Amino acid sequence: MQTVDLNADMAESYGAWNMGDDAALLKIVTSANIACGGHAGDADVMAATMTMAHSNGVGIGAHPGFMDIAGFGRNRMSVPRKTLQNQVRYQVAASIGMARSVGAEVRHLKLHGAMANMASEDETLARDLYEAALSVAPDLIVMVLAATAQQAAVKSLGCAWAGEIFADRAYNDDATLVDRSLPGAVIHDADLAGKRMVEMVQAGAIITESGKHIETQIDTICLHGDTAEAVQIAASVRQSLESAGITLAQFKGHR
Amino acid sequence: MQTVDLNADMAESYGAWNMGDDAALLKIVTSANIACGGHAGDADVMAATMTMAHSNGVGIGAHPGFMDIAGFGRNRMSVPRKTLQNQVRYQVAASIGMARSVGAEVRHLKLHGAMANMASEDETLARDLYEAALSVAPDLIVMVLAATAQQAAVKSLGCAWAGEIFADRAYNDDATLVDRSLPGAVIHDADLAGKRMVEMVQAGAIITESGKHIETQIDTICLHGDTAEAVQIAASVRQSLESAGITLAQFKGHR
Amino acid sequence: MQTVDLNADMAESYGAWNMGDDAALLKIVTSANIACGGHAGDADVMAATMTMAHSNGVGIGAHPGFMDIAGFGRNRMSVPRKTLQNQVRYQVAASIGMARSVGAEVRHLKLHGAMANMASEDETLARDLYEAALSVAPDLIVMVLAATAQQAAVKSLGCAWAGEIFADRAYNDDATLVDRSLPGAVIHDADLAGKRMVEMVQAGAIITESGKHIETQIDTICLHGDTAEAVQIAASVRQSLESAGITLAQFKGHR
Amino acid sequence: MQTVDLNADMAESYGAWNMGDDAALLKIVTSANIACGGHAGDADVMAATMTMAHSNGVGIGAHPGFMDIAGFGRNRMSVPRKTLQNQVRYQVAASIGMARSVGAEVRHLKLHGAMANMASEDETLARDLYEAALSVAPDLIVMVLAATAQQAAVKSLGCAWAGEIFADRAYNDDATLVDRSLPGAVIHDADLAGKRMVEMVQAGAIITESGKHIETQIDTICLHGDTAEAVQIAASVRQSLESAGITLAQFKGHR
Repeated sequence: MQTVDLNADMAESYGAWNMGDDAALLKIVTSANIACGGHAGDADVMAATMTMAHSNGVGIGAHPGFMDIAGFGRNRMSVPRKTLQNQVRYQVAASIGMARSVGAEVRHLKLHGAMANMASEDETLARDLYEAALSVAPDLIVMVLAATAQQAAVKSLGCAWAGEIFADRAYNDDATLVDRSLPGAVIHDADLAGKRMVEMVQAGAIITESGKHIETQIDTICLHGDTAEAVQIAASVRQSLESAGITLAQFKGHR
Repeated sequence: MQTVDLNADMAESYGAWNMGDDAALLKIVTSANIACGGHAGDADVMAATMTMAHSNGVGIGAHPGFMDIAGFGRNRMSVPRKTLQNQVRYQVAASIGMARSVGAEVRHLKLHGAMANMASEDETLARDLYEAALSVAPDLIVMVLAATAQQAAVKSLGCAWAGEIFADRAYNDDATLVDRSLPGAVIHDADLAGKRMVEMVQAGAIITESGKHIETQIDTICLHGDTAEAVQIAASVRQSLESAGITLAQFKGHR
Repeated sequence: MQTVDLNADMAESYGAWNMGDDAALLKIVTSANIACGGHAGDADVMAATMTMAHSNGVGIGAHPGFMDIAGFGRNRMSVPRKTLQNQVRYQVAASIGMARSVGAEVRHLKLHGAMANMASEDETLARDLYEAALSVAPDLIVMVLAATAQQAAVKSLGCAWAGEIFADRAYNDDATLVDRSLPGAVIHDADLAGKRMVEMVQAGAIITESGKHIETQIDTICLHGDTAEAVQIAASVRQSLESAGITLAQFKGHR
Repeated sequence: MQTVDLNADMAESYGAWNMGDDAALLKIVTSANIACGGHAGDADVMAATMTMAHSNGVGIGAHPGFMDIAGFGRNRMSVPRKTLQNQVRYQVAASIGMARSVGAEVRHLKLHGAMANMASEDETLARDLYEAALSVAPDLIVMVLAATAQQAAVKSLGCAWAGEIFADRAYNDDATLVDRSLPGAVIHDADLAGKRMVEMVQAGAIITESGKHIETQIDTICLHGDTAEAVQIAASVRQSLESAGITLAQFKGHR
């Protein structure tokens, strides 16, 4: 019997501004990546979302990014390495204590936005950031973009990790994502998204646009919830996986 | 034999801007109140100062304030109570994890600036903020302004606490501080500051300008390090206390 | 023939976060209060909204508030008076230059949130803030909450001003707003809101819950656009005024 | 008779944090580059420094940078071009209005930090940013790093400009600065700095480490004031230039 986790980014509201439908997503996913105040997510949003995730039995992850609220962590920044490590430590630390204060626990780490993109291209950067996070909480399971430099980093570190693929993005033959500007790069068809995920999980491989299979560890599938359409796709992917007899459950992490 | 702790606010630099001479102060004090990124103190400053405090055997405290970098936490703000509690949780959480990542530990809590002033006048506010901090770390020792509403709050909460007096401020007969605009409110004479502290610690009482004794728990003395003069006064107070046979050591906290 | 202006707060999105339906509101109002980056509104949002307002023939106003993005300018803050004046200058200055860069012009000023509330209770504060704004742009028309300390301030200053009432709020007999927690304080019925505005404009008076008439200068009516319902009420109020033969046009300002 | 301007970055304090000795520098320089709140400089600091510059007869410039207070504008950021242009507009606009409110005027523009470095390597970026600034204030004189892509940009734009060299940095043969990590890159000897500046101004050329002359427009010399040593070097350079019969005066700008 196959098992896979479903994850989504959450707690990305800020102050007076709302983003996404976290309550709806928390009925679909098994893991939640909680923004930590770096790129989004203030203390109220973190506390409320963690409380809701915990009561829904959803696993909680720290989701640090560049400390750039105005840019939502989407700008690449040449922050000195040591500073960047301390900023990751700070955000992970805040997550862990906020979780504790609502009776919950942080079990995984997932990098956000431009920081994640840069780490998926640069194994040393990925390792430096993961080490920083693990210096605060050595038992964190590091969620990595499957078959990227992020995965190479966790393997060389020897820490617990889980491999992630995207439900709504097409892949190139080198396991990178098809550029958003190209046709078919983003999948808007809920049925198609579900069907692809079932195939990839059953194959234990990323299946690229050309049909190539890239064998990889698929522990979790990334869903989105920023629009009503996105929530609907997320629900549909979950339904497709369940119909195919795949069990949905929090990933365990492996080394 | 009498014992007292010496504390000072630290890690109040931010990005490119320096504040205070933390390295000098860490040779004088026994406890350091480390800014947590709310009113000052970024992740680099926190990590560096905590590392230095730990290697000097100085006790580390979380020093949260209003989340107002531009105002240094000095503006009173009508932040909704629940939000304020979450902001205290966030800052305390960040402190605890940052300390852990450098092999150290946070043992006490001290409120900063306008938040501290408001809490010294409002027992309910003080209790709400302390409860928030303790929900993250139940073993924190809460440092309170002796004989204020802060002290009433820890007593009604039943948590571990330590009472603090100021080395360089004159007191009114109701245990409040003499307004800074009045002559003699701030003590610039290092010898006088040291002499007063010895008297108060030996008396177990705040001694007001009029000579009145207000019996109170004196566990720690607040020093400053923002100017070269301040560091010199701090060193002098330490010297006076040692000369009088008073032991300088981290407070233990009592209930 | 009577004339009145319709105004609404706008450009309150920030970075990745959207707020309100400015495009829809700009087809309804005759004046737009543009956030200036203090409590909301970044440079992109300001430029885009000013461009849209200008091409719709809508008058542009600077809408400064406390510099507190995380709190959306809703927290009262004890910022030193001189600093607060400089912060108003800064925001007004930014508005004026941003408008110029898109070929538009700032013609009025309206204070935001907690700053506006405080100024409506404190004539000296209001006057200090208006003087600060006018030191940047002496020809600004100051929009004031009719019959409050804001109005007293513009009268004593002798600057150009316009009086504002709310479409969706009930009034007490002293011209203050009925507390939001009381029944009937906020009007959700579009027809009722429109009918009340027609009556007040025709009467040249605020009509309170008890039916009392408070004669005042009504130059502009404040509408909201943060929800779909709010936009619908705004459109309905406009319709009601037009049906009653009242002309909708930018206020002129008087002294 | 030769004339040259002396400029320095200023108003880089922020809130409770001080940076540099602006009062001392304003007695030495003829032009001041005033931070605009993007990388440093709050409304109080801007107002105070502009007032002081104006009363000393020192020319005022807007000094925008990446909107990254925590990083002091030193991090390169991949901000979308249109957003970056709006951020420059915003900062320049704020400067102009703040200057007006203290009876002064902004006459030049100088980019800060990482933004300046990027623009010195990328003519299109430089032009885009200058166009943004000029859309707010068409008469600004753009200060450029002599013989870089910044200079190419102002020439292709046809705007008024002034060329700048550094008093305390050694040059490579391609007019770039010697990397700070190499010996001799930064000049700490006040006499040497002064002597070099006299030679370069008299030669109308950057003189590189190898002795090569790169003919260029030298309208202004950049001094620093962040340390006591820096202020002393600045004063010494001024003295050397005056002793050599070179007149110190605000640059005029040419096309």
